[in-house]
Amino acid sequence: MENIVVKNQEVVISVNQLLGQWQGHRRLTRRVIEAFPEDKLFNYSIGGMRTFSALVMEMIEIAYPGVQGLIDGNWKDEVKEQPKTKEELLHLWDVLTERIDRLWPLIPIERFQTVEAAFGMYEDALYSTVLYFIDNEIHHRGQGYVYLRSLGIEPPAFYER
Amino acid sequence: MENIVVKNQEVVISVNQLLGQWQGHRRLTRRVIEAFPEDKLFNYSIGGMRTFSALVMEMIEIAYPGVQGLIDGNWKDEVKEQPKTKEELLHLWDVLTERIDRLWPLIPIERFQTVEAAFGMYEDALYSTVLYFIDNEIHHRGQGYVYLRSLGIEPPAFYER
Repeated sequence: MENIVVKNQEVVISVNQLLGQWQGHRRLTRRVIEAFPEDKLFNYSIGGMRTFSALVMEMIEIAYPGVQGLIDGNWKDEVKEQPKTKEELLHLWDVLTERIDRLWPLIPIERFQTVEAAFGMYEDALYSTVLYFIDNEIHHRGQGYVYLRSLGIEPPAFYER
Repeated sequence: MENIVVKNQEVVISVNQLLGQWQGHRRLTRRVIEAFPEDKLFNYSIGGMRTFSALVMEMIEIAYPGVQGLIDGNWKDEVKEQPKTKEELLHLWDVLTERIDRLWPLIPIERFQTVEAAFGMYEDALYSTVLYFIDNEIHHRGQGYVYLRSLGIEPPAFYER
């Protein structure tokens, strides 16, 4: 009982809260995908940058193997789909949402403080790797907001998750 | 001793690691400010959005009172400066960097799991409020990346902190 008290007092963010943050951001990103006209999703960009669909595929291609890697250090799962429509992209997004919810509870708690080269390349403590997944999504989604604004489209509210 | 072991096993992200994430992002944002030509920092935007200096001022006006609010629920500190040059903006950024480093250790650990209306308005557990400060900065900085790209300027690498 005393252990539990100590644990609760010391928690900055719990493992479930971290998942909640990630999926909250992913819900917002899904709404940003939905806000794009289909052609602009696959064709539009600013300043020679990638299209928003390409940025979303980067998020997917990080998170899909990433959630398995967090569990056991296997960072090699591959995304086989290459969506060509908004509907296909949203479907892949939703498949990944379920995969993350299903695999997250299998991450051993001590993994978050384990230092490991994610994808064989990015050596860091895995809590920081997870935050990188989330931060990279926020970064690129913010770029999608500019694409939408430049098209005269009001993006979803940032604070709604 | 047993308590300490339990604590270490359960940590997803420590209070110092959370500060490290925030200041790492703030170092990158500082480099993005530096990358802007002075006139574009204060005058340029896309799609009717705010200038990057205005976005940076939002980050400052959240973090300055925010770090005090995390300690004791006083969310009312005000930023008095309104920088008119890049140098003044960077100076204010650096003053805030020191303030965050100085005040962060004064946040009682149990505050991160305390639910409170930050700024009297945004009710959430304070760990989530801190993440909101960081996420909002990443979001707007990502928009600054598009401004830079559209000006033909290569932004700093996202992964360097």
